[in-house]
Amino acid sequence: MSLLIVGTVAFDAIETPFGKTDKIIGGAATYISLAASCFTKNPSIVSVVGDDFPQDFMNLLKERSINLNGLQIKKDEKSFFWAGRYHNDMNTRDTLVTELNVLADFDPIVPEELKQPDFLMLGNLTPMVQKKVINQLTKRPKLIVMDTMNFWMDIAWNDLIEVVSMVDVLTINDEEARQLTKEYSLVKAAKKVLTMGPKLLIIKKGEHGALLFSKNRVFFAPALPLEEVFDPTGAGDTFAGGFIGYLDKTNDISFENMKRAIIYGSALASFTVEKFGTEKLLELKENEIEERIQKFVELVKFDPIS
Amino acid sequence: MSLLIVGTVAFDAIETPFGKTDKIIGGAATYISLAASCFTKNPSIVSVVGDDFPQDFMNLLKERSINLNGLQIKKDEKSFFWAGRYHNDMNTRDTLVTELNVLADFDPIVPEELKQPDFLMLGNLTPMVQKKVINQLTKRPKLIVMDTMNFWMDIAWNDLIEVVSMVDVLTINDEEARQLTKEYSLVKAAKKVLTMGPKLLIIKKGEHGALLFSKNRVFFAPALPLEEVFDPTGAGDTFAGGFIGYLDKTNDISFENMKRAIIYGSALASFTVEKFGTEKLLELKENEIEERIQKFVELVKFDPIS
Repeated sequence: MSLLIVGTVAFDAIETPFGKTDKIIGGAATYISLAASCFTKNPSIVSVVGDDFPQDFMNLLKERSINLNGLQIKKDEKSFFWAGRYHNDMNTRDTLVTELNVLADFDPIVPEELKQPDFLMLGNLTPMVQKKVINQLTKRPKLIVMDTMNFWMDIAWNDLIEVVSMVDVLTINDEEARQLTKEYSLVKAAKKVLTMGPKLLIIKKGEHGALLFSKNRVFFAPALPLEEVFDPTGAGDTFAGGFIGYLDKTNDISFENMKRAIIYGSALASFTVEKFGTEKLLELKENEIEERIQKFVELVKFDPIS
Repeated sequence: MSLLIVGTVAFDAIETPFGKTDKIIGGAATYISLAASCFTKNPSIVSVVGDDFPQDFMNLLKERSINLNGLQIKKDEKSFFWAGRYHNDMNTRDTLVTELNVLADFDPIVPEELKQPDFLMLGNLTPMVQKKVINQLTKRPKLIVMDTMNFWMDIAWNDLIEVVSMVDVLTINDEEARQLTKEYSLVKAAKKVLTMGPKLLIIKKGEHGALLFSKNRVFFAPALPLEEVFDPTGAGDTFAGGFIGYLDKTNDISFENMKRAIIYGSALASFTVEKFGTEKLLELKENEIEERIQKFVELVKFDPIS
């Protein structure tokens, strides 16, 4: 199968109660593609960086079979940069710096050979950029998954609603689901979202797991209780990347397989938070993933009859 | 088997975004015993009320096989009364009125014939009252489960720690686990609690489910995503009552059976919040419980291999 990923490729600087980093590599498309590449071959990125972006890291992505033909490199411009500081609870954070740089006027260009992907993952980005990518495709993908955030609900509501209407699966967190639907109950929020276009809604609840809603079904994937969350940056993108990468690999978009995909995404996300940035994702071994999946199985397994 | 329950039997007045009640019957021991009686016969209550407490409701408890021989009725005194108002999120509430009344100098007396229970459930109450009950028993119960809350951590720390050291299972919520151990990570908090006396810790996370920790194992029970939470009062006590009632019925305190007991407790709690006070618990049918258990099974069921 084939997977196209749109999202940021960027620099992050992160402070947590456990330490701080200088500029390190981040961005939604970075995490999504690295996570997807744990399961599937040749995911492609559509994104933009400045010529300050290290060739070494691009080589590293290529070594993992990630196709960068859709990554624009802007001469004499700088890559997107975000700096943030996490509070002690690791669930809330302050943004310290946002330098849009190349992202300010990003015009995504999907290379000819990538215009018929089976799976499309729209990472969190300006809704109009997400839409431009959909519109360049010459065949409707089997599945379009869209991630977004409250920021776009605040400043680009109409655009966001339009893109939401074009996708199959929406992934947002619980607060965003409430903001999007003006419903406090997540069950009611899900019902509303499922009238807005998507056939499936994934509500990410961070340390409280994730919910998958279809019109008639609901699945709950737990988060693994972790002794230490070192850096939550990229956990949501890793989750999305694992999810879509697993679907692309298995080429099965049944509800049953989506459940598995969510568990695989959750498992990868539980690794990402163990170290700063992409560090843990980059060193991950296949048997570690399998062992962690087994932990998820055991975490919720019970036999209702004694 | 036999089950002894200590806790309040009281009046509540509740305001939620959906409506408000006059004085209705509440109290930890009320919810615990009603929930336990869904699974097991003859649970006994040790508690105290004033002579303002309605005989009709006591009859109702007796009809459900609940033994009230340990319920003191104080002449010319008034029952404990609590009034509270829930916020729109239904997760936070303000206490409007707390009238201790008979609870102010409650001296629990365990009737002779109830001094050798197999299971003891210490509902949320002054730690010293919980201790007095343990000390009146003439045989160590097979299992002592203790519920408590942040209030006692604030005003009766040493007493609380002493009682915690005497029990087998502690049930608290996530914020209380953090306050008790000064650890933010629930995994670390659990490790600490398991050095304080209890062999098992249940962390209740409300709409986010519950975690069961033993020294070497962890189990996660989801909460059922509900379309409407009408009144959360008593959900935690219902959970505890379903848990201990199921254990008493099955007389099996293995980790595997505890997992089932937590699911049964969660299922009952999901009913309690559907109506005001004890209303839903009182009208609950056995087949409704079985259907709901099945929903819990389906909620988390996945096959890791496609």
